[in-house]
Amino acid sequence: MSLLVVGSVAYDGIETPFGKTDRILGGSATYISLASSYFTDKINLVGVVGKDFADEDINLFKSKNVDLEGLQVDDSGNTFFWKGKYHHDLNMRDTLDTQLNVFERFDPVIPDAYKDARFVALGNIEPSLQEKVLHQVNKPDLVVMDTMNFWIEGTPDALKKTLKGVDLLVINDSEARELANEPNLIIAANKVRDMGPDSLIIKKGEHGALLFTGDEIFSAPAYPVIDIFDPTGAGDTFMGGLLGWLAYTNDLAPENMRRAVIMGSVMASFCVEKFGPERLKNLTEEAIYSRYKEFRRLSVIPDID
Amino acid sequence: MSLLVVGSVAYDGIETPFGKTDRILGGSATYISLASSYFTDKINLVGVVGKDFADEDINLFKSKNVDLEGLQVDDSGNTFFWKGKYHHDLNMRDTLDTQLNVFERFDPVIPDAYKDARFVALGNIEPSLQEKVLHQVNKPDLVVMDTMNFWIEGTPDALKKTLKGVDLLVINDSEARELANEPNLIIAANKVRDMGPDSLIIKKGEHGALLFTGDEIFSAPAYPVIDIFDPTGAGDTFMGGLLGWLAYTNDLAPENMRRAVIMGSVMASFCVEKFGPERLKNLTEEAIYSRYKEFRRLSVIPDID
Repeated sequence: MSLLVVGSVAYDGIETPFGKTDRILGGSATYISLASSYFTDKINLVGVVGKDFADEDINLFKSKNVDLEGLQVDDSGNTFFWKGKYHHDLNMRDTLDTQLNVFERFDPVIPDAYKDARFVALGNIEPSLQEKVLHQVNKPDLVVMDTMNFWIEGTPDALKKTLKGVDLLVINDSEARELANEPNLIIAANKVRDMGPDSLIIKKGEHGALLFTGDEIFSAPAYPVIDIFDPTGAGDTFMGGLLGWLAYTNDLAPENMRRAVIMGSVMASFCVEKFGPERLKNLTEEAIYSRYKEFRRLSVIPDID
Repeated sequence: MSLLVVGSVAYDGIETPFGKTDRILGGSATYISLASSYFTDKINLVGVVGKDFADEDINLFKSKNVDLEGLQVDDSGNTFFWKGKYHHDLNMRDTLDTQLNVFERFDPVIPDAYKDARFVALGNIEPSLQEKVLHQVNKPDLVVMDTMNFWIEGTPDALKKTLKGVDLLVINDSEARELANEPNLIIAANKVRDMGPDSLIIKKGEHGALLFTGDEIFSAPAYPVIDIFDPTGAGDTFMGGLLGWLAYTNDLAPENMRRAVIMGSVMASFCVEKFGPERLKNLTEEAIYSRYKEFRRLSVIPDID
């Protein structure tokens, strides 16, 4: 099924304890599109880039069958640029530079050809822009949204308004606690679901993820990554793997939602192995399915007599 | 199989956001013994209490078939007393009072009748005392040990010496990182296992636990507890459920170790529902096995075709 991805397309400067890159392709829509491209080839990207956007990056999207009719090229400035440095403990990072550039004027216009997308991924952008997307599409089967503390604190009203049109919210644990103003994660999850989203995924980084859907909770393990190289984009990649799997299978039953969470985790576990989206450029189906099976082995609880 | 439990027996004063108790039975050996008593009735407790230790608490142990030949009663003072207050976020607490009392002079003497115990639980006490226990027992099948940051920082040499005689170390994630001086939990686990313990369990509180045994890693989910009332003793209760299950089944294969981790998690999830060890006083086999099955449902990853 067709998948509409709306979010940022950017260049990132990244420093981790293991290396440094001055400029690498980034942005939420980039990671979501690349990760989902391993499962479905009907990906429609809506975003904006500037006059400096490289042909090789355009070609990367095209090579993954990502449709770029919705990618605006704004020649009045450069592409969104973010620069950050990770600490020794990779869970923390400092932002060193943020140049919004053409992204500051981003107005998501959905091409007619995209409006019937069955699956919609709203990457982490301003909530009012996310809502603008929802006004342009024709009753998708599933709207999945990401957000962050910046919007929870800065534009809570717009965020809560947008949440009403969202089917599945994907946020991390600190965001869930802040959004619900509640330290207990399970209670926080219930409160967030009362705000609109039928289902909720709480990402817990190295501790895996929790899926709340229907009456059940699914606890997904994290992959025990020894060689984590660069965490940039892991969350967006998770969302991409998740949505790619759902669009491919077109099955929103709780059991398949579990598979989707693991597929998101699988793709994120690959993503962190190299800088930026490098690792997402040439994965194989075999590697993906093999890691899925590793996740299964990791969490098997044997029955008792 | 017989289980030897060595640790503290104490009275605790506890304040949580949900209530307060001035004095309730506590201590690592208490929680370990009570939790394991649901699986095996050959529990031998070694600890020390003071002249204030109540008959009703003696009777509680006896009612759970905990042998008290090794429980020293030191009339020269009172029982170890700890008082603490939990924050709104129950992951943090302040110690308000610590009176070591007779525990300050605790010298674990293992009665002859206990020396052939097949399973040994070394609760969180001074590492040199834990080692003293190991010198008195006759080649147990499994020595399980707990420790804490206080000993990792205060007596690292004694701790590392004791670790050489330990088969399974049970610590939390911050302790594992500190002991290995390594932020990546998976690498930290490998470093800790190089210090002696064949197997390692890293408890992650609300995020579950990781078991490292042989060549495999098991990721155990946490039970989604909404009504967490008092976290005191949860870690010791985990160890008790784990060891009780292992002593009952007498099976140290990796598959059964997974069951033991879940049984520990089951018992800990009950423990936090009430003050101190209250909830451990009258559980039923049905409630325990039913919650085990809930843990299984929580973490099932469906196969893909």
